[in-house]
Amino acid sequence: MRRWNGWGEESIHATIDEGARGFLEEALGSGTLPQDASLAAALARLPASRLSAAQLHGAPVPLSIEAEDRLRASFGQSLGDWLRLRFGQIGPVCDAVASPDAVEQVRPLLDWARQQGLVVIPVGGATSVVGHLTPPAGERPVLMLSMQRLRRLLSLDASSQLARFEAGVLGPDLEAQLRAEGWMLGHYPQSFEYASLGGWIATRSSGQQSARYGRIEALFAGGRVELPTSTLDIPTLPATAAGPDLREWVLGSEGRLGVITEASVRISRVPEREDFVAWFLPSWERGQAAVQALAQARLGLSMMRLANATETLTTLKLAGHAGAIAWLERYLALRGCAEGKVLLMLGFTGGAAQVRAMQALAKPLLRAQGGVSTGTLLGRKWAAKRFRGVYLRNALWEAGYAVDTMETACDWPRVTPMMQAMEHAGRSALAGHGERCHAYTHLSHVYPQGSSVYSTFVFRIGPDFDGAWARWQSLKAAVSEAIVREGGTISHQHGVGKDHAPYLGAEKGATGLRLIDGLIREADPGGLLDSGNLRPSTARAQP
Amino acid sequence: MRRWNGWGEESIHATIDEGARGFLEEALGSGTLPQDASLAAALARLPASRLSAAQLHGAPVPLSIEAEDRLRASFGQSLGDWLRLRFGQIGPVCDAVASPDAVEQVRPLLDWARQQGLVVIPVGGATSVVGHLTPPAGERPVLMLSMQRLRRLLSLDASSQLARFEAGVLGPDLEAQLRAEGWMLGHYPQSFEYASLGGWIATRSSGQQSARYGRIEALFAGGRVELPTSTLDIPTLPATAAGPDLREWVLGSEGRLGVITEASVRISRVPEREDFVAWFLPSWERGQAAVQALAQARLGLSMMRLANATETLTTLKLAGHAGAIAWLERYLALRGCAEGKVLLMLGFTGGAAQVRAMQALAKPLLRAQGGVSTGTLLGRKWAAKRFRGVYLRNALWEAGYAVDTMETACDWPRVTPMMQAMEHAGRSALAGHGERCHAYTHLSHVYPQGSSVYSTFVFRIGPDFDGAWARWQSLKAAVSEAIVREGGTISHQHGVGKDHAPYLGAEKGATGLRLIDGLIREADPGGLLDSGNLRPSTARAQP
Repeated sequence: MRRWNGWGEESIHATIDEGARGFLEEALGSGTLPQDASLAAALARLPASRLSAAQLHGAPVPLSIEAEDRLRASFGQSLGDWLRLRFGQIGPVCDAVASPDAVEQVRPLLDWARQQGLVVIPVGGATSVVGHLTPPAGERPVLMLSMQRLRRLLSLDASSQLARFEAGVLGPDLEAQLRAEGWMLGHYPQSFEYASLGGWIATRSSGQQSARYGRIEALFAGGRVELPTSTLDIPTLPATAAGPDLREWVLGSEGRLGVITEASVRISRVPEREDFVAWFLPSWERGQAAVQALAQARLGLSMMRLANATETLTTLKLAGHAGAIAWLERYLALRGCAEGKVLLMLGFTGGAAQVRAMQALAKPLLRAQGGVSTGTLLGRKWAAKRFRGVYLRNALWEAGYAVDTMETACDWPRVTPMMQAMEHAGRSALAGHGERCHAYTHLSHVYPQGSSVYSTFVFRIGPDFDGAWARWQSLKAAVSEAIVREGGTISHQHGVGKDHAPYLGAEKGATGLRLIDGLIREADPGGLLDSGNLRPSTARAQP
Repeated sequence: MRRWNGWGEESIHATIDEGARGFLEEALGSGTLPQDASLAAALARLPASRLSAAQLHGAPVPLSIEAEDRLRASFGQSLGDWLRLRFGQIGPVCDAVASPDAVEQVRPLLDWARQQGLVVIPVGGATSVVGHLTPPAGERPVLMLSMQRLRRLLSLDASSQLARFEAGVLGPDLEAQLRAEGWMLGHYPQSFEYASLGGWIATRSSGQQSARYGRIEALFAGGRVELPTSTLDIPTLPATAAGPDLREWVLGSEGRLGVITEASVRISRVPEREDFVAWFLPSWERGQAAVQALAQARLGLSMMRLANATETLTTLKLAGHAGAIAWLERYLALRGCAEGKVLLMLGFTGGAAQVRAMQALAKPLLRAQGGVSTGTLLGRKWAAKRFRGVYLRNALWEAGYAVDTMETACDWPRVTPMMQAMEHAGRSALAGHGERCHAYTHLSHVYPQGSSVYSTFVFRIGPDFDGAWARWQSLKAAVSEAIVREGGTISHQHGVGKDHAPYLGAEKGATGLRLIDGLIREADPGGLLDSGNLRPSTARAQP
């Protein structure tokens, strides 16, 4: 069973050991664990569905108005979502949930919902960390259109390396269906376990190995989108110069243009060899120089992930195995990587000869920056736990600490100032509440032009909802403002939703916002899909 | 001086030798060379400009109503353009040409033109082969906005590998300005000599080495677009998930959304080594299998260009050097590449070690299909003449033959049927006029998912304009219909313009067309930029 107020399966428990706890206490003070609300208490707070019995009987697809279904469909994984669920401060929830079990049911469902004056919000795996799912407060009832049953592999063209899926398929299910035929997609965001294909497309998702497999923009080859009043079919083509590329209008549309029901994706053969190799470099500056050189040499690595000194330290502290880590650090110090060292995880994927060639080409670029390889042991551990790290949020909560992450991308000259500004903004925001903030950063997606910058903020939850919410809002606002001030995008891989809505205009400009709004109005003149996403005026208010 | 009714500089003369002439006569019959109209005769046919003296004096940028300026700005390089110019059957031309010499002049010029009720068509290097520039026939005077003076390098960020240019810069000038700083772009469409950066963006251009450097979609990092009533600034970002990517709305907008005045592009260091290697394979089937395997192995080659048997034969026949070619063919026949052999030109670009590694990885895939390498001699010749081949159109015209090319892209299972259907459609269309057609094809851009398919059609011009125009229209319609029937895009690299307008709907669908139209109306409610491009109802009529 999936947790209703945290990440992942209830049967999976992440823990932090005494050393890690001591490290956090030293950094932040003792954790303050408030009493979580029970599911029953949270459900008791839900308003009744505003759908009438006639509507429930007239819908072309069965609708659920069960409180738990409505609760689960209305929340993602933003820290704001967590706070509302953990404290039982529910706020707006949808009025009903429809879970079609055939893609053909989506068209009549939308037509019916339009006639009924509902707002429809498509929901895949409910892993949004930016408030995509939060229903708008307003007069019109809200129907969540759950894609969870639409998960079939529809066709596979081995010659073109294309697979067509129903868009509700979740990451592990998608990969399992492909692996059964000897294929893979290779799209691994950290939310992989629960994230859906349609959600990846609607939010311009990026996976950990996008350097090889491509961001979802490169993987999405075409598909079908049910618009409020018509159907958009985008054929698969390897490339086209026939005017605007409509794939790109669907990518990042965040449920506002239509419901993605089917998607063709570009698949790959399972690679012959894959090595994840951990390198250490003596300093942030040299680490950044190394990844920049690697990216600009275009060697074809599948992953480059550079932790700054604080994240490196935190990773080693939270890993457990204090004895082994101490030996590792002694070895690294002897080789020039001591205080201030940074961890770089590299992925080499492909044919065996290709992997060897890449490693040979990468090595001198790393050595030139004082890099020390520690081989594949740490890499194998990282790969084995790549989707487990996110469970740490549960363990930290239970120790009294909240975790939020903020991410952006910018050109190279802005990367280090961006990292510093984001961490500083987070610490300052919490200082305004008399609290400390443990902030650390990694570069998760490195490009020839620049890099993503991904910062994590750990702080004490606070004694009550109002206090915790205020801490989170201060942090989110301060870091978002730092991001746009330093010239970054408000999101490299999470999307806009409600949490980032006020900062969209900084990137798009007034003209860009007007064009986006014009396109949405053309597709959806009646506002059937008007969840508030992609609308700069829609910031999430305290419930 | 640039030719007014053909390709390129007047001082450059391509020729075909007796052997080539004999080959064409055998294939098509003796060429029929009509009398070309003189420039003076063509200019005499131009209607007077409809702009008033008051308008000419009131414009914020000097306007030219000189007949030759108006003529040159109103034509691209489509065979339809050629026929109209060569026969002096001019048809619609613009009323005036503005050539701003500062990007800041574009905004007031557009504002003024809007107030005057003009139609504005931006023009870069006038190399369109699909009728982008043909002015619409209508009541409103047409102003061509020539970007030719806007050619400066504005800034260069070595760290992010970004260069910002005024968008009117032409290919050779752009490369020269970058080379002076040790950089390059690497975007080499065959029209490189005259094509402009803004034109590449507006038409989704693809260069010969796009497999390494990327299509223009990947090279265009941001910029400034003057919309009819406002300015769109797109910041450079390595990647973004903040809703729709507005770069993609500008790409392929064909002058209908706004005027691209500045563009930042992703540049590269000049590579250490570049080899173009000619391989021969025994048959089309084995050649296609080889390029598909190479593309799907993702080795990072910069170019894969596979000629079918007829194009291979034609290339060898038109190359001159009959003696050397005969020796080459004897050698190839001994190695298993005889009748039906196909020529594959491969580009290996990068660091010296990287190039060696790529070649070692590519070789077994080529050998597996019976490939025979002939080394770098033919490749060096190809590279040295890569922008000279297009001059052959002049020589063929002077021998009495017209040349048109049509191109598409499709998924792998459709590639061979597409090639056969396109060639068959071309031959059938000319047979309807009692003429033969020499049709041949190459794959110029090969992707893991599929390939572009680029066919050339050579046929006798015909004795007069009406006859020649009818042959061209039959060919164009038949091949376009074959392309959409076989599931290809109406253009992989040339765009839509007027010549492909009727076939846009096959790819975009009614819903897609409605969205495109809605976006254009949002950007340009008054139709200031309504050249007729991207409008499916706009096919070019006989003048």
